[in-house]
Amino acid sequence: MSQKYGPNLSQEAMDKVLQEEDTGYLGLADEGKPYVVPVSFAYLDHRIVIHGATTGRKLDIIRRNPRACFTVSRHIDRTRPHQAEGGCTYRFESVICQGTAEVVDDPVIRLEWLRRFKDYFYRKLRLDPAADPVTEKAAQHCSCIVLRIETMTGRAKREAVAD
Amino acid sequence: MSQKYGPNLSQEAMDKVLQEEDTGYLGLADEGKPYVVPVSFAYLDHRIVIHGATTGRKLDIIRRNPRACFTVSRHIDRTRPHQAEGGCTYRFESVICQGTAEVVDDPVIRLEWLRRFKDYFYRKLRLDPAADPVTEKAAQHCSCIVLRIETMTGRAKREAVAD
Repeated sequence: MSQKYGPNLSQEAMDKVLQEEDTGYLGLADEGKPYVVPVSFAYLDHRIVIHGATTGRKLDIIRRNPRACFTVSRHIDRTRPHQAEGGCTYRFESVICQGTAEVVDDPVIRLEWLRRFKDYFYRKLRLDPAADPVTEKAAQHCSCIVLRIETMTGRAKREAVAD
Repeated sequence: MSQKYGPNLSQEAMDKVLQEEDTGYLGLADEGKPYVVPVSFAYLDHRIVIHGATTGRKLDIIRRNPRACFTVSRHIDRTRPHQAEGGCTYRFESVICQGTAEVVDDPVIRLEWLRRFKDYFYRKLRLDPAADPVTEKAAQHCSCIVLRIETMTGRAKREAVAD
């Protein structure tokens, strides 16, 4: 995933990766110390929306330093060795988002995001989101992080070509 | 992947995740700005070994700030919605390593790590590493990052249980 490969993904192709994948890696920096945590996410309004427990390290760090990186990568096949002539057959698509994360403390706004989050997942799974709406009570026991994306870069290597 | 789930993985279980997976997420911090990049890796001597191009952002950042986080997660099935009683059926295993990364500049040490890296992958793929050894010339065109792990935590949620 070096500089050799891109950035070469269009906005449309990056959106597709973010819409299709369920898990991403949220990167934060706590006084110079990086922290990377896997999360399930929704991609809504050019934002990454994450829900989770009401306490935890990522919430604490975001309150101190809201700068965030969010990375999603998918791998078309397993890593394979270099070929005799130095070619590499590792194929992937990845998107790296840089932005600002916010822990949504306002209960009304949080409920709205959590409803949209659930709606997003239910639609992906072809389930009816109206069947089981997020209640105000449930939203009290759930945190919500919204990452506003400022820049986004995507790289892909789709063919088995020489480096 | 909240505090609710662990850390609950034994060292043996964490080692298994790191040995079996091919891709991890390297997190760095560049003057308070996090950067997360997907990489293929080898897990050797309680270290994460990464190879790649000889230039690039991750090398630049590591030279300024060697603090690193390395996260590997695997997902037993796709994200599924909460159940009626609030239970979540999302199953995963993840390992978060904190440590210090080094760009290996010494050509002799780099060649040694790159040989071990290749050997590791060939063995995983049940190929003969002796058939295609890393040459000194090839090693000149390849960087090597070695992340010395200082702390490691692992979380798993294997059963479909209530939150």
